Amino acid sequence: MRRFEALIRHVIDEHALSRSAVVYRLFDAVLVLVGVGAAVEATQPDLSVNAVAGCLWAIATVWVCFLLDYLARLWVAPHEGDLTGQSFLRSRLEWIVSRNGMIDIGSVLPMALGLALVDWAPDGAPLLAIFWVSRFARYTTGLDMLWRVLSRERQPVLGVLLIFVLVMLIAAVLAYLAERHVQPEHFGSLSMAMWWAVTTLTTTGYGDVVPETPFGRLLAGFVMICGITVFGLLAGILATGFSGELRRRDFLRNWDLVAQVPFLRDVGPGTIADLANILRPREVPARSVLARRGQPGDCMYFIVQGEVEALVEPHSHLMGPGDFFGEIALLTGGPRTATIMTLTQCRLLVLDIADFRAIAASRPELLVVIQDEADRRLGLMGKEHTPGGKS
Amino acid sequence: MRRFEALIRHVIDEHALSRSAVVYRLFDAVLVLVGVGAAVEATQPDLSVNAVAGCLWAIATVWVCFLLDYLARLWVAPHEGDLTGQSFLRSRLEWIVSRNGMIDIGSVLPMALGLALVDWAPDGAPLLAIFWVSRFARYTTGLDMLWRVLSRERQPVLGVLLIFVLVMLIAAVLAYLAERHVQPEHFGSLSMAMWWAVTTLTTTGYGDVVPETPFGRLLAGFVMICGITVFGLLAGILATGFSGELRRRDFLRNWDLVAQVPFLRDVGPGTIADLANILRPREVPARSVLARRGQPGDCMYFIVQGEVEALVEPHSHLMGPGDFFGEIALLTGGPRTATIMTLTQCRLLVLDIADFRAIAASRPELLVVIQDEADRRLGLMGKEHTPGGKS
Amino acid sequence: MRRFEALIRHVIDEHALSRSAVVYRLFDAVLVLVGVGAAVEATQPDLSVNAVAGCLWAIATVWVCFLLDYLARLWVAPHEGDLTGQSFLRSRLEWIVSRNGMIDIGSVLPMALGLALVDWAPDGAPLLAIFWVSRFARYTTGLDMLWRVLSRERQPVLGVLLIFVLVMLIAAVLAYLAERHVQPEHFGSLSMAMWWAVTTLTTTGYGDVVPETPFGRLLAGFVMICGITVFGLLAGILATGFSGELRRRDFLRNWDLVAQVPFLRDVGPGTIADLANILRPREVPARSVLARRGQPGDCMYFIVQGEVEALVEPHSHLMGPGDFFGEIALLTGGPRTATIMTLTQCRLLVLDIADFRAIAASRPELLVVIQDEADRRLGLMGKEHTPGGKS
Amino acid sequence: MRRFEALIRHVIDEHALSRSAVVYRLFDAVLVLVGVGAAVEATQPDLSVNAVAGCLWAIATVWVCFLLDYLARLWVAPHEGDLTGQSFLRSRLEWIVSRNGMIDIGSVLPMALGLALVDWAPDGAPLLAIFWVSRFARYTTGLDMLWRVLSRERQPVLGVLLIFVLVMLIAAVLAYLAERHVQPEHFGSLSMAMWWAVTTLTTTGYGDVVPETPFGRLLAGFVMICGITVFGLLAGILATGFSGELRRRDFLRNWDLVAQVPFLRDVGPGTIADLANILRPREVPARSVLARRGQPGDCMYFIVQGEVEALVEPHSHLMGPGDFFGEIALLTGGPRTATIMTLTQCRLLVLDIADFRAIAASRPELLVVIQDEADRRLGLMGKEHTPGGKS
Repeated sequence: MRRFEALIRHVIDEHALSRSAVVYRLFDAVLVLVGVGAAVEATQPDLSVNAVAGCLWAIATVWVCFLLDYLARLWVAPHEGDLTGQSFLRSRLEWIVSRNGMIDIGSVLPMALGLALVDWAPDGAPLLAIFWVSRFARYTTGLDMLWRVLSRERQPVLGVLLIFVLVMLIAAVLAYLAERHVQPEHFGSLSMAMWWAVTTLTTTGYGDVVPETPFGRLLAGFVMICGITVFGLLAGILATGFSGELRRRDFLRNWDLVAQVPFLRDVGPGTIADLANILRPREVPARSVLARRGQPGDCMYFIVQGEVEALVEPHSHLMGPGDFFGEIALLTGGPRTATIMTLTQCRLLVLDIADFRAIAASRPELLVVIQDEADRRLGLMGKEHTPGGKS
Repeated sequence: MRRFEALIRHVIDEHALSRSAVVYRLFDAVLVLVGVGAAVEATQPDLSVNAVAGCLWAIATVWVCFLLDYLARLWVAPHEGDLTGQSFLRSRLEWIVSRNGMIDIGSVLPMALGLALVDWAPDGAPLLAIFWVSRFARYTTGLDMLWRVLSRERQPVLGVLLIFVLVMLIAAVLAYLAERHVQPEHFGSLSMAMWWAVTTLTTTGYGDVVPETPFGRLLAGFVMICGITVFGLLAGILATGFSGELRRRDFLRNWDLVAQVPFLRDVGPGTIADLANILRPREVPARSVLARRGQPGDCMYFIVQGEVEALVEPHSHLMGPGDFFGEIALLTGGPRTATIMTLTQCRLLVLDIADFRAIAASRPELLVVIQDEADRRLGLMGKEHTPGGKS
Repeated sequence: MRRFEALIRHVIDEHALSRSAVVYRLFDAVLVLVGVGAAVEATQPDLSVNAVAGCLWAIATVWVCFLLDYLARLWVAPHEGDLTGQSFLRSRLEWIVSRNGMIDIGSVLPMALGLALVDWAPDGAPLLAIFWVSRFARYTTGLDMLWRVLSRERQPVLGVLLIFVLVMLIAAVLAYLAERHVQPEHFGSLSMAMWWAVTTLTTTGYGDVVPETPFGRLLAGFVMICGITVFGLLAGILATGFSGELRRRDFLRNWDLVAQVPFLRDVGPGTIADLANILRPREVPARSVLARRGQPGDCMYFIVQGEVEALVEPHSHLMGPGDFFGEIALLTGGPRTATIMTLTQCRLLVLDIADFRAIAASRPELLVVIQDEADRRLGLMGKEHTPGGKS
Repeated sequence: MRRFEALIRHVIDEHALSRSAVVYRLFDAVLVLVGVGAAVEATQPDLSVNAVAGCLWAIATVWVCFLLDYLARLWVAPHEGDLTGQSFLRSRLEWIVSRNGMIDIGSVLPMALGLALVDWAPDGAPLLAIFWVSRFARYTTGLDMLWRVLSRERQPVLGVLLIFVLVMLIAAVLAYLAERHVQPEHFGSLSMAMWWAVTTLTTTGYGDVVPETPFGRLLAGFVMICGITVFGLLAGILATGFSGELRRRDFLRNWDLVAQVPFLRDVGPGTIADLANILRPREVPARSVLARRGQPGDCMYFIVQGEVEALVEPHSHLMGPGDFFGEIALLTGGPRTATIMTLTQCRLLVLDIADFRAIAASRPELLVVIQDEADRRLGLMGKEHTPGGKS
């Protein structure tokens, strides 16, 4: 039972790289696409009864799959409770109200309610299938970040929206006053004029309502320019927010990884903070080639988890967590001196050549340690090669 | 009388977090929405006389409320005069010409004038109700910031506008020359061609005027590409401006708050400047839980105003202005060791875990002080827990 | 004669703040607007012969003014030749081929040529009047900056354009294949399909050509999303470029000004470089009040040129180039202690309070010097006030 | 034979600045334009048989040219194999699968296949000529950068796309429910409503489908605002990514160039890293004037490759790789003291005056070295001028 639970937990783990987990994720994605596609198709006006029934059956089937998925996830809900002594029930409850739990219940419950309250026609409960797209939110950290940016830059964003609404209302009143006698069918009331104003201010420009008086057109031109300025303001605010948020995310993620590499832990907090700003994590499946002897090299690697093999013919070396490799090409500027292949699934930290040079300049002590190791390896290689040349 | 004045001042204070002030703000917002909604509704062409009268009455009622609000605000106008010896009248006068004073008079006076000069029909003075939306400007600091950015980046923004106008005029002339014989009803004069050019350059594209000659279409494609480039330029300029302005605003706001925390005042000007760049202020109402024992923690707090209670069962500690808490989870990487609840409305400074690590690396002296306090607390907790375990 | 030349040089100087220079600039702007307006108006199809003649006369008059302006500017063309010994003719020639010279000749010559080659009808040479808008380029440094940014980010901008063209062509071919049998009048050739593709990719969306097949609409949706992504890429590239360019411009401008303030020259190159990054220049006309006693202060000033008067009742002090003022409010956080008024037109460097605090933290030696001067002044003020209180 | 190979290699080198290489690149560009133009023209519906045949012949001719170009490039494919001992065949194979190789085969192979599978009518295989535009990718590094940015910012970009899809689907369902009874021909199915939603969300706004119910219009307004926000988010993310990527590219490129200047190699790694961040490379053809005596100077140059001549009348000095010039104008703030002309094609590193001042402040040791050399040159110039004055 425990092993079965562990298996399920592994399969539904959204970050696992094993074949079964990847297949499960693909299956999840296909279900979503099938469900959404069926919901869209079912509303086609000229569809045969059989085709509609097929669509509805497809939606129902996907719904059942998602229900099973929900129950499975609920069963194996992670409980950090192990350390604080949470009960079984409590950890389940916490998962239910977590973000992922809410998304998953959102795939199942609304349609059941919709079926009970509305009906099971193509334009009834099955329409709720489109919310299944939100299941993809589990696989991207981008949404969290977007949310953080929007909430941090709330004040200026609200300022822009206020400007937007003010310009829209003023434009609507002026257009109403200018055009209502010329085009009463389009500008006959303030709400009609507002429809024109919002269409113009967002530069959508349907063209169903177009001012005709000279003043109206002048006003429209001004509103359009305001529109692209508002747009620019919004882009500017959000660009600023993202800049900080991306840096923060990388810093935090890398800090945790750096803490798992003994060698990096020893170089002092200043250097760690610098490294956490520039390293990039990378997950590599087993038996991938990271560097090929004789090819140019533009980064070095620190191993966080997993094992890699360095093939310096005729020998090969194993390297494990805490080791680093690829530094020789950065130091000499020459090609790779060995072919490196992962033996197991690996989690690596990548140091780009540009960042390597910058940090080597500002943190000479780090360069010294790396240089020493590189010298040791080159010496080793030299010795190995000399007898190798003899044979 | 003085107490009544103080009460009013508190209720209309736009930054107060008390229930009465929040209710008053909501009431203000509802009035604005009612007023604007009534103004829009009153212009519907097929409305009964009674409905129109109802809308006008609603606008009049809201107007009276805003008049009372204005008088109240005028009466309790803040006078920093206490320290420089300003007279009662002078402080009132200064408020009247202040930004908030202008917005408030703008809610009341124009409609009174409009009533006198135009008339009280749905398409007369009541239209001015839409300006009431500007009352929201009081609650956002975003507008000030937008204004500062636009005025600082005046030069490049004007440069972009000049490019915009030049491209627009040249496109209009060329389109006029190319299309006027083919579509005299759309490109028969330069001003008609300018209408097309501005619609195209802002990528609004109403579609009421579309070039038909091959040259005209080539020109249109070029104008569209210019349009998105101009847009990109504008977004780029404003993004740059916002970046600096947001940093400036945070720095100033935090500096003032940091100056109220004795512990932070003592760490030296360099550290204060760094902290002012990264701390984030947060207002928390009374009886909110800031951290829950056993949950992961991703920030620490400095108390600027108010009191919080740390529940380390079976005891609890009070903390007040100048204290900090939440640092243990950051230092150990473990879960929160205590549940923290605000007792009164609090003003806090939040130090995010990413920023904590970065500043701990660059300012080791700050880390030492925080570490010492954390050790003291953990020791205390250990002692408390040992006898607590006995009972 | 020399005095007359100096007068003209002063009046047409585009950076002078004197009344005559400002009036001349306004006059120039009015001429441009009149000329462009007349050119636009003259093409109205239903205009009387007299009105057309009036427009043409207006354009001719403005043209004569611009010719006189050109000759005047040519006469007084600046010759830095004084120091390198350039001849009178050479300095004139250099001005003619300078940017401003080219713009000015562009206001005069093309219309003369156009008159000779085409004719003087509303849709002939007078259309060239729209180029007069480029005269505004003289008054903004924004265009130079835009140009520098575009040329520095040439590579990625070209990359974006290449993507744009590729997506456009592929979309056109696919739409051509999908729609040509359904709408031969709209998608009957590749060039018609390209017209649709460019309209869609720029999100202009005239709506004159709309795909109707399911595949065509799917394609259109994809093209639109590509369109906003291309737009985002462009905005991103230009935002990055502007960020660097704005910093460069401010640094250079401020460095030259800082070099004119003896006090700032003495604080060491590192501090000067920091100051040049944060100071903001400001031109103030004579008899403007820069600070008012008792008001809050959020910046201090360094005088580059001109004289200001500090009114500390009952006395007043004069300050000239190299002096600074307004530092007391920044140091104490209190209100202004004196009213400051310019006596002559002044060029000042403004140090914002946020930047003051940041630089005071990183450059304590600068703070010491400013603090000393502030103490001296406060002491002086105290002494003055004591006898002042007696009288 | 070897010489002929070297000649071809030089002519097709995309970075060479010699006349023959430039002409070849222009010829390549003309071929692409001719081919694409012919493909577009051939689909015109009302074209004579002869014209169509001409277009097809043009395409075929261009195709043959590209085939020859491909074979030539394959023959002279660069083999870094010289140092690692790669065989002739292997280097060819590596070029074939390289990016440039794929683009080149993409110009030739698809059309051959298309001819075999489809037919040689204007709407058949010749349409593939539009892919020839991708040949321009060879000449810009922008595409690589775009790709790197998109792949680095994958997570937030996917988050934005998810939001886009979610908003689009929800808007489509709501519009379908609101409008399907009013406009069954436009909102009769979910897929029709999705067409409207995507058109509105991207602010394209064809205007072929426009909501008519009040709720539908309110929804449309909301969708438009979401659209410009999504746009802003995208621009923000990409702006952030570009900022880092542009810095990285410049740093790497400059580092390699700096390493070729002996003087810069000796100033210490910190200064090199700083310089690599601010220097800008510049390729100059032979016999170009870089600075003209008496003109203002705003940058200095380091020579990486090539020779320049400094004309200080009556003498002239030669300078070669490793030398620098133009520093006197930066140090004195005066005009250029010599006219500098390139003798051969040169590769230079340009240090802008703004960056010069900033680095002189932070790296005084660099300033000292440059100042010494400038003093030496000014001394030399003084001596030369004195006897020069005598003659």
